[in-house]
Order: sequence, then C-alpha cells, then structure tokens
Amino acid sequence: MKREGLVNFAAGPAALPQSVLIRARDELLDWRGTGMSVMELPFTSAEYRGIAAEAARDVRDLLALAPGYHVLFLQGGAYGHFALLAMNLLGRRAEADYVQTGHWSCRAITEAARYGRIEIVASGEADGYRHIPPQEEWCLNSGAAYCHVTSNETANGLQFHWTPDTGRVPLVADVTSDFLTRPMDVSRYGLLYASAQKNVGIAGLTIVIIHEDLLDQAMELTPAVFNYGLQARGASTVNTPPTYALYIAGLVFSWLKGQGGLVAIEEANRRKSTHLYDTVDADDFYHCPIEPADRSLVNVCFRLPSPELEAAFLAQAAERGLVNLAGHGATGGIRASLYNCLPQTGVDALVGFMHEFSASRRDSR
Amino acid sequence: MKREGLVNFAAGPAALPQSVLIRARDELLDWRGTGMSVMELPFTSAEYRGIAAEAARDVRDLLALAPGYHVLFLQGGAYGHFALLAMNLLGRRAEADYVQTGHWSCRAITEAARYGRIEIVASGEADGYRHIPPQEEWCLNSGAAYCHVTSNETANGLQFHWTPDTGRVPLVADVTSDFLTRPMDVSRYGLLYASAQKNVGIAGLTIVIIHEDLLDQAMELTPAVFNYGLQARGASTVNTPPTYALYIAGLVFSWLKGQGGLVAIEEANRRKSTHLYDTVDADDFYHCPIEPADRSLVNVCFRLPSPELEAAFLAQAAERGLVNLAGHGATGGIRASLYNCLPQTGVDALVGFMHEFSASRRDSR
Repeated sequence: MKREGLVNFAAGPAALPQSVLIRARDELLDWRGTGMSVMELPFTSAEYRGIAAEAARDVRDLLALAPGYHVLFLQGGAYGHFALLAMNLLGRRAEADYVQTGHWSCRAITEAARYGRIEIVASGEADGYRHIPPQEEWCLNSGAAYCHVTSNETANGLQFHWTPDTGRVPLVADVTSDFLTRPMDVSRYGLLYASAQKNVGIAGLTIVIIHEDLLDQAMELTPAVFNYGLQARGASTVNTPPTYALYIAGLVFSWLKGQGGLVAIEEANRRKSTHLYDTVDADDFYHCPIEPADRSLVNVCFRLPSPELEAAFLAQAAERGLVNLAGHGATGGIRASLYNCLPQTGVDALVGFMHEFSASRRDSR
Repeated sequence: MKREGLVNFAAGPAALPQSVLIRARDELLDWRGTGMSVMELPFTSAEYRGIAAEAARDVRDLLALAPGYHVLFLQGGAYGHFALLAMNLLGRRAEADYVQTGHWSCRAITEAARYGRIEIVASGEADGYRHIPPQEEWCLNSGAAYCHVTSNETANGLQFHWTPDTGRVPLVADVTSDFLTRPMDVSRYGLLYASAQKNVGIAGLTIVIIHEDLLDQAMELTPAVFNYGLQARGASTVNTPPTYALYIAGLVFSWLKGQGGLVAIEEANRRKSTHLYDTVDADDFYHCPIEPADRSLVNVCFRLPSPELEAAFLAQAAERGLVNLAGHGATGGIRASLYNCLPQTGVDALVGFMHEFSASRRDSR
C-alpha cells in the first residue's frame, strides 16, 4: 500500500502530518548544519536546549498559558502517570476524588489507589459509560488533594464538552487523547497530562502541565525523575529526556501553529467528526451508543448489526486503504480516531465507504 | 560543520552508525511498503510486534541468553529504574546491598533508599572513586533481596572487568554505559538494565533483562507499567511502548550482528580505548587518575595540568570537529566516550590532536 492511498485511523500511535515526516527525514542525518542527528545531540547541548525551549514556548502560546504553569517533558506515558501523579499530589492529603467515565478513568483509579484513599465521586458505569455524569450528581470531598477527570475516553468514545467546577480542590485531567485538539481554559486546572502519540507526536513522551502551587506535595516514595517539582526546577533534565520524541512533538507544535492554532484546528476536527456522526445517525445500519451531547470529537465509536458484519467492514475497509479502524480490545466495534493530524479527506473516504458497505449489505439481507 | 568532518564523543545521547541513520531516513515515510512510518504504527499491529520480536531475538542472540531470562523494553531511563527496580525487588525482603563506585551508583542508592534498608557493602569513596573495591572487601548480607553494582561509572571513568560473586543473593547491574559493548555471562546476574542512548540507540528506551525467578516480588506500590512481572507476561505492551526508539535500537542490534557480534565489538572497543589510554600515559601533560586495572573502556576520563588548559583543549578540539569532550558536570576534566558506534578513526583524530596540543603548550610554558 502506498502512503498516498492510505488513511490511518489508529488510536495511537497515530498518523502524523506528511510535512512533519518529510522535515524529520530531511534533517535526520544533519540537524541545521551541526553535523549531528537530533538523535545524537547531548541533552545538555545548546542545540537540544533550544529545541526543548521552543517546544515549551509553542505549547505556552497555543494554550495561552499563564506564567504560574510549568510545562514538563517526561517519560512514562499517561498510564505511568496515573500512578506518578498520585505520588506527586498525595504527600500532604492522602485522599483524592475521581470521576469514572470509562476504560481509562478506571485504570487511573486502580493506579492511584496504591497511594491513598480514592473516592469515585461520580460514575457512568451503570449505563455502560454512555454519558458523562453531569456536575450536579458529583459528590465532591472538600478534603481531597485533587479531583481527577479523563477529558476524553479513547476506548468508549465520550468526551467532556464542559469544564468541571471543583471549587478549591485542584482539577486534574488526563487529556491524552484530546490534547491541543481545541482551545481550553487551563486556568481552571491544576494539572494536565498527555501522552504524545495521539495528537502531537510519537510514543515515549509525556507532557505534564502543572501549576506551581501543586509542585511540592510529593510523597517521599516518588522517584526523582518523576518528581514534578524537581523536573520543573530542572527544566525537565533531571534525567535524560526523550530527546527525539520531543523534537518530533516540536515539529507538530509548529505545524499546529501553521494550521492557525487551536481555534482553527478545533473547527477542522469538528467538521471531521460531525460528518462521521451525521453518517452514522442517518443510517440505521450503524449505531453510536454514546449520548449525543457527550460524544467524542476524536474517537468516533460505532457498531454494526453484528460482530460478523463488523469483521467484514474492517476487512473491506482495509482493502480500500482505510486501516486501523478496529475498536479497543475491551469494547470491540468500530473506532475511527480523528486526531489533529488525520485529514478531512480521510473522513470523506471513510464516509464514502460506509455508504457503499451499508447499501451492499442491506441489499443482500 | 559537515557530518563527515565531525567526531561526536558525547556521553549519551551519543553517536549512531551512519548506516543506521541512513536506513531510518530512507524508511521514515513508508516502512516496508506499509504506507506508514514506524512512528505511526499501532503498537498492537503485526508490523510493530514483528519489530519488537526481532529486537528481542537479536538481544537474546547477542548475549546468548538462557531461556529463563525475559527481555523488557520500557520507558523511564536507568535513573528512573534506580527507583523502579527497588520497588520490583523489595516486596518480600526489604533490604538490599549496594556497591558504591562513583556518581551513578550513589544516585542508585539514593533512589533505592526510598523503598527499603540499603546497605553500602563496599565503597571507593575514600580515594575519590579511583578504583573498584575488590571482592574480598565486600561485606555481603545473606538476607539482602539483591546486590547492586554499576558495571561502568560514566562520570568517573571506571568499570568492572570481573563479575562479582554474590552467592545466593541475586546480582543486579546497571549496565547502561557498557551494554552490548562486550560479551558477558548473563547467567551470573538476576537483573540487568540499560538506557539505550549510549551504545544501542536513542533516549527514551530502557532495556531490562530479568530472570524469571525475580519477576513476582514487587511491592504493592509499583506502578503497573513499571511492574516487571506484568510487562514480562505482557510482552512489554502493558502500556504503549516507546515504539520508534525500539525500532532504532533494533537497527543498531542488526548493525552489531553485522560487525561480528560482541566478541568483535569488544576487540574494536578495546583497540580504541587502549590507543587513547596509551597516549594519556605516555605524555605527562595528561593524567588519568583511575587505577589502570579498573579503567573504563567506554568513558576515558583524563585531566590536563589546569582548568584553563582543559578549557583551551575543549575549544580547540571543537574547532577540529572533535566535539562533546567535556567531562561530567560533577567531575570536570576531559571525557571521551568511546561507545560501540564511535569509529576508530575518531579516536585516531583525537590522539593526533592530543599530541599537537600538548607539544604546543609544552613549548609555550
């Protein structure tokens, strides 16, 4: 399959912009006349510091971050930070609130529970995670060190389209799957974290954005390289950072700015997902179980009448170059991940195929 | 500076073989006709599983690993695993022995001490870490969960050239800076770990080799993604692995096999370091403080008569394209890192410059 004929709907690692890959390729053996690949630059060098500083500046610009926030570039993945953020925040108060909205928030809860008393203050479990529990149902604890939400549930396909109000309790969000896909008011949050491999780069880089007020409440058992306070003061170089992954993320940040920033990318993302949900809703061959108001703009999950039809759909789609459309292992079904770097033309191709597939199967029933 | 005129003596991230970089560049937009970059492959795909399986097989081949050992590809860096290995091994017995040989073993001790009682059973501190304490001086504890050594001290420039005998207590080694630089009898070890960015790849990948007997003694507080037992059973895909970094490591493993494996690479590495130490020892302008028997083959550290001369040496060397020769921040001086991928011609160029520099400064004194 040629690159030109392919649309990669993977949930992450996911498609990157062609222009980013071309730039990475062209610079691979010699970055800006240094005679070295970015892969070979010492992380203490002026060159790498420049790359990291520019990436941090671009994140600040894109999100219009206030000065009190630090941008950290770490390892571990969001799943790692389910545990690590709890170590970092439960040093003074050993309890935290969690909102349970699907597969990934459940994992976040399991990991955090190793370090303190975790209370599930709202849950969508009863209806199979088809909706985000509305704020009025949340039973928040004023003594909690923080309240954790998963801004987008990648496996289930639902997303917060509003910002929770947790009063004086700092709001913490796993934004892995919708990081930099839309503007957000970061001042409402104490901590955000995201793996890079969905919207902004490759696997192996985790971005943590943390308000300075939360920096120094780590438990004694927190490893130095994952201590957010140490890393904030050390410009994310307490240990060797994932330098090449950060370089790629930096290229994507530049690309995002070139696309017009977060307002423009949200418009583009909304156009993509609206087109796909409209197709699903207009044809009773397809079915999306998620409440319309809570549907994810980045992971569009839907079902066909049977697992057999879903398997046939996936196989035929792949023949057309529409690949990696299988749902998460825990949920099954079809999932089209429409992250920042997936083009509108890819969605158009999928919609065209969906019309054909349902027509052909309807005829044969 | 052109790539051709440059020798990168960085301590890590470090130089990679030109052939590896060329292959990575040529495959960057389309890996083996998939139409996708390796950066974009789902980690659950057959393609990525193939890349990971081949990399694991090559590590097994290169080290002639026995079946009881697992090869894990994780995040966190060796510094992260200073803490994480202690979490993984101190679940049943809460004490461990450490041998203190320099900068990095000290850090390993600090991190492990968060999780249990750590005893320093031998130390080179008294003479400023100029030698590896001989085995007969070690006071081992039979109740220790493990005994930890740092096979090569990157900052100080000394290295184990023998394998400790710790009896029934499992031997654990940080082999970050000499991993796959020479043959080793892994059956003498319970656990080995290494960051990739010195001898086998780029930053962001940590390789853990662990015997199955040590898999299930993790403390409750171990994060799932860093639980060696879970990752061994899950083929290192409990969370998203650093896929691209593993791909690059795989290319280096292939390159190593092409060089003739570990016997051949050790010969080459020994030739490089011997040439450099001979130069240092033959000219009293240069001075290496480390006991000859314990000198590192991969990080050759030496001093000049004054810090001013060292600064001039570094500046003039850089003008000749001999870059990243400054010693570790904690020690100063000159350090030439001669990892697997640094060519003999680079050492020859450095030796030529050293002769010229000492002659010119000797004349001017």
